[in-house]
Amino acid sequence: MKKIMNRAEDYTDEMLRGIYEVHRGRVKCAADDLRCYCTAEKVEGKVAIVTGGGNGHLPLFLGYVGKGMLDGCGVGDVFQSPSGKQIYYIAKEVEAGAGVLFLYGNYTGDIMVFDDASERLEMDDIETMSIVGADDVNSSDDVNVRRGVAGIFFMYKAAGARAMSMGNLQEVYDAAQKAKENTRTVGFALTPCIIPEKGKPNFELQENEMAMGMGIHGEPGVWNGPIMTSSEIAKESCDTILKDMEVKEGEEVAILINGLGSTPLDEQYILANDVICYLNSRGIRVYRSWVGEFATSMEMAGASITVCKVDEELKAWFEMPVDTPFYKQN
Amino acid sequence: MKKIMNRAEDYTDEMLRGIYEVHRGRVKCAADDLRCYCTAEKVEGKVAIVTGGGNGHLPLFLGYVGKGMLDGCGVGDVFQSPSGKQIYYIAKEVEAGAGVLFLYGNYTGDIMVFDDASERLEMDDIETMSIVGADDVNSSDDVNVRRGVAGIFFMYKAAGARAMSMGNLQEVYDAAQKAKENTRTVGFALTPCIIPEKGKPNFELQENEMAMGMGIHGEPGVWNGPIMTSSEIAKESCDTILKDMEVKEGEEVAILINGLGSTPLDEQYILANDVICYLNSRGIRVYRSWVGEFATSMEMAGASITVCKVDEELKAWFEMPVDTPFYKQN
Repeated sequence: MKKIMNRAEDYTDEMLRGIYEVHRGRVKCAADDLRCYCTAEKVEGKVAIVTGGGNGHLPLFLGYVGKGMLDGCGVGDVFQSPSGKQIYYIAKEVEAGAGVLFLYGNYTGDIMVFDDASERLEMDDIETMSIVGADDVNSSDDVNVRRGVAGIFFMYKAAGARAMSMGNLQEVYDAAQKAKENTRTVGFALTPCIIPEKGKPNFELQENEMAMGMGIHGEPGVWNGPIMTSSEIAKESCDTILKDMEVKEGEEVAILINGLGSTPLDEQYILANDVICYLNSRGIRVYRSWVGEFATSMEMAGASITVCKVDEELKAWFEMPVDTPFYKQN
Repeated sequence: MKKIMNRAEDYTDEMLRGIYEVHRGRVKCAADDLRCYCTAEKVEGKVAIVTGGGNGHLPLFLGYVGKGMLDGCGVGDVFQSPSGKQIYYIAKEVEAGAGVLFLYGNYTGDIMVFDDASERLEMDDIETMSIVGADDVNSSDDVNVRRGVAGIFFMYKAAGARAMSMGNLQEVYDAAQKAKENTRTVGFALTPCIIPEKGKPNFELQENEMAMGMGIHGEPGVWNGPIMTSSEIAKESCDTILKDMEVKEGEEVAILINGLGSTPLDEQYILANDVICYLNSRGIRVYRSWVGEFATSMEMAGASITVCKVDEELKAWFEMPVDTPFYKQN
């Protein structure tokens, strides 16, 4: 295991210490718990949006806490959920008089945690609503059990923008829901990653082998086979997405090309080019593209392709400014 | 070789096609040559700053072309220089009546290329000045032959800020020079990377071995040995830097913790935390930290630590806003 760290058991806490130190003044922790990550730029009267999940996916999840996106994030150990109590403390800290939207990935552990926090907050008369990201098409045909992956970015963006324009809790929820309904992702891995506490790869792939549809924690995909070219990957991934979500000729989409960790930006742009060319060949217009690392699996190689079908309302939300320590958009 | 690409020989051009497509309206190419990368947001009367170098280091070099930093960038094949003619075309395109500063890394091939471009521009009565980044302490005791690595970011930032405030060519050069004199970097690699056209690793490291002082093209460092802990790496690297550049107790520095490619942000922040703690223990105050991928070697694992000793003038330049497709600062 080749990692820049000290003791494996301190991996997440030392990372958090670094983040609080580097971005001091902009973020803080609640309840004296490093894992309770909150914005220091609370906006009174705004719906608070709280997310959370296991560590190991930076900039997901905590990187989206800041102006124009989220207000708090519960941080678990690598690939482990935070606790309900931690989410509760975060929500108490960032709640600003307009209720709290819980917006997180569709994983059993996380659902239990956020449900627990909702119950605790209900006793304090703080209203909550919950919505999960479930954009990973290849993870299931049943949309209710699909995993949440990089496409949650568009839900954060829509909900964050609606909250910044002082929408009420239902309106912020509806914005997240609208982004969710129109977002699909396909991901694929070229190499595994290593959980620091375990010290060995979380799965195996042969030399020259890729895993189509693999999840961001190494959940098995739909096939393992020889690495395809970028343009072949773009075509298969887009076909999978467009079979699941109709996008008519002439309609517009936003795309997110997400590097999983060790895949360089160079390759992400090669893939972006192929995805845009393929969508254009099907008469679909890409109104805007995001390319970079948005939801990683530490040092896993691979990428994901997210397509979000947009109308003028979604585009307006997507164009609103964001300023977090990890993500800026003017 | 596990890369998301099509033909290896198209790697750089297809990457560039993706970048022009995704950031259309903000960047363009000169002379109908993809490798002649220019801002589309030219500011009349401003000193133009042009950089360049081999591909494979994104966001270096072209990622710093945009508002508040650079105006153009020559892009070579992976780890290969662009041509003098390409730099000439770029300079002709972005020159805005106040001359051109060439600011690039201290590598023999690149020096020849920029000198060639300077001669061509002289014949067109366009004034140029040249300065190279040479911040890699471990690459040589002789500051004139040191390689340029991630610390060039602070030179770009200072020069870009001075140019934006409409300094003349000499003043913009002086700003770059001031950042250069106060900047030192130490880097280390945990794994090699693979040049697409070659298809095999550019050097070898054993399991559990790291290379202290290795260059961003795999140039040999000062020692290979067992991976140290993050805090040990922080101490050794800072000691190397502070032995070369005195920073007195009570003085302030900016730091840049740069991931080389496959090292996750998690680890970069662990390292940042250790660097800040160690500098503080020596009475040095870190006024601001940059953490992320600023100068990579494709999928190489490892990082670099840059320390820049600052005064109020440098801090003012560093605080000025930047907005490029790859880097934003408010």
